[in-house]
Amino acid sequence: MSLNEAQSQDVSRMLEGDQRALSRLLTLLERGGADATALMRAVHGHTGRAYCIGVTGPPGAGKSTIVDGLTALWRADGLSVGILAVDPSSPFSGGALLGDRLRMQRHYLDSGVFIRSMASHGESGGLPLAVRGAARLLDTAGKAMVAVETVGVGQAELRVMGVADTVVVTLTPEAGDAIQTLKAGLSEIADILVVNKADREGASRLAEALAASAQMGASREGWTPPVLTTQAHTGAGLPELLQAIERHRRWMESTSLLARRRAARRREEAVELVERAVSQRIRTHIQSNAALRDSLAAAERGERDPYSCAEELLARLLPDWPEG
Amino acid sequence: MSLNEAQSQDVSRMLEGDQRALSRLLTLLERGGADATALMRAVHGHTGRAYCIGVTGPPGAGKSTIVDGLTALWRADGLSVGILAVDPSSPFSGGALLGDRLRMQRHYLDSGVFIRSMASHGESGGLPLAVRGAARLLDTAGKAMVAVETVGVGQAELRVMGVADTVVVTLTPEAGDAIQTLKAGLSEIADILVVNKADREGASRLAEALAASAQMGASREGWTPPVLTTQAHTGAGLPELLQAIERHRRWMESTSLLARRRAARRREEAVELVERAVSQRIRTHIQSNAALRDSLAAAERGERDPYSCAEELLARLLPDWPEG
Repeated sequence: MSLNEAQSQDVSRMLEGDQRALSRLLTLLERGGADATALMRAVHGHTGRAYCIGVTGPPGAGKSTIVDGLTALWRADGLSVGILAVDPSSPFSGGALLGDRLRMQRHYLDSGVFIRSMASHGESGGLPLAVRGAARLLDTAGKAMVAVETVGVGQAELRVMGVADTVVVTLTPEAGDAIQTLKAGLSEIADILVVNKADREGASRLAEALAASAQMGASREGWTPPVLTTQAHTGAGLPELLQAIERHRRWMESTSLLARRRAARRREEAVELVERAVSQRIRTHIQSNAALRDSLAAAERGERDPYSCAEELLARLLPDWPEG
Repeated sequence: MSLNEAQSQDVSRMLEGDQRALSRLLTLLERGGADATALMRAVHGHTGRAYCIGVTGPPGAGKSTIVDGLTALWRADGLSVGILAVDPSSPFSGGALLGDRLRMQRHYLDSGVFIRSMASHGESGGLPLAVRGAARLLDTAGKAMVAVETVGVGQAELRVMGVADTVVVTLTPEAGDAIQTLKAGLSEIADILVVNKADREGASRLAEALAASAQMGASREGWTPPVLTTQAHTGAGLPELLQAIERHRRWMESTSLLARRRAARRREEAVELVERAVSQRIRTHIQSNAALRDSLAAAERGERDPYSCAEELLARLLPDWPEG
């Protein structure tokens, strides 16, 4: 499969920075299948210049405001910016992010900023892959900085953060018990910790607790996640956050960890793409094969247990494969 | 594969209600593989008597307190209870749920209550399957009511809720903007909506908004999710919640929706088990095949894009399969 003429023209335009072509090709990517593969093959070799920041944290922590503030600073430095606003927690309605339209308006006249919302459309587990592909397209379209923000702190959000070169975890003093629950997971993916809404009570106490915890978990890769305080709505603390991101970037580059992270990510992406395609084919295959259909129908009626059914399906689907 | 003698004895004991045998077999199930299949085959035919309630909502909404309160009411009715406290948002540390030890203590002397925490252990996507299997074991162990509670409201939590016959979504007046973000997804899985901490400001306003929204989305299956207010820490509203659960159960049974939901769930479980096993085998297969390894290494080095690499791997792995 290769791209048709209109699609190939869009690729050329996107590589020159055309955002409408970029938009159409992101839609093509999200639809998946052979077109997506042809697209990614066509843009291969044009990637690797963008730097990708991930921003995650509980709802209400001010992630969008932080990303907007960073965007303004990057723009002042003459850097073009792509923003992916990812919402894995709306699998049913593919709902829009709050304030998204407002943001679109704010940056509407700035052709150096491109914003795209991504929701999971109910497709189980495919969103992190789509985000990776989308970040790569933003890269080929010439964005110097790509910011990926997520809503929430579940497992899907953590997987989405796998796309980022630098992960910023944002919390607020209010988050309280939620933080305790999540700290273990968060401290393991955070390259930088931010306590936003730092004018509120408990901010410095939280920042100190996080710093102590970051210190303890530090030696793992030689980087101790700094803990910053911000008031994103006034812009206070954001220049320092920008500097911390730059510091982490230089450290990643000087230790070659950046290259290793990206290589591991490309490998994992390929394996996950295979897994997803196999899952899709399994469902098609079952439908087209009477013996497989019958076995599954017996499980559905409760005449046999799902585990035995799965074992039989597996033996029929992959008779020659060694066990995992 | 079949169970060894000790395991078979545990199955007999579990079917008689022995909770230590149940505990050991849950561990066996969580380890997966051939033993898990043999276990589920052995208990087949002993399931279907328990009724499963799912309780989900944002952190801090009082889910554990509600489950504890319902448990006390069920116990007063002489019903045995199994509780699965599921935390999909700690993929790294498999962290314990807050307050879990406290709860264990509270019910320690009551042999009619069994509590088990489940975290994802970093295994991507396998937790909902493990929860389904665990709920089935609690059923075979004679629990009349099985309550599954999750932390958070991400996609993983929604998938975990797929195990439940009745889904209770719990919110608080404070949740504010988080709720707006999540309402779309939540209202589609909620059979019953609860506004907990109803003594706080904004509770009745939130309850009215939810009721209006539930009314709008109702006709889909003929059930309009009732909206209840509770103060779980005092027990206020919990008897009404229990009645609402009973009403939903009777409605599910009278419309045969319960049987259909459970049948669809068994089918989906078998397919997901196949997908998971195939994913595991793919990774093993790639390691044992030089051509596959080389292709992946090229993607890792960035010499080819992950999508083309995945396409090639797929063609080599499943040469005879039709495309999905």
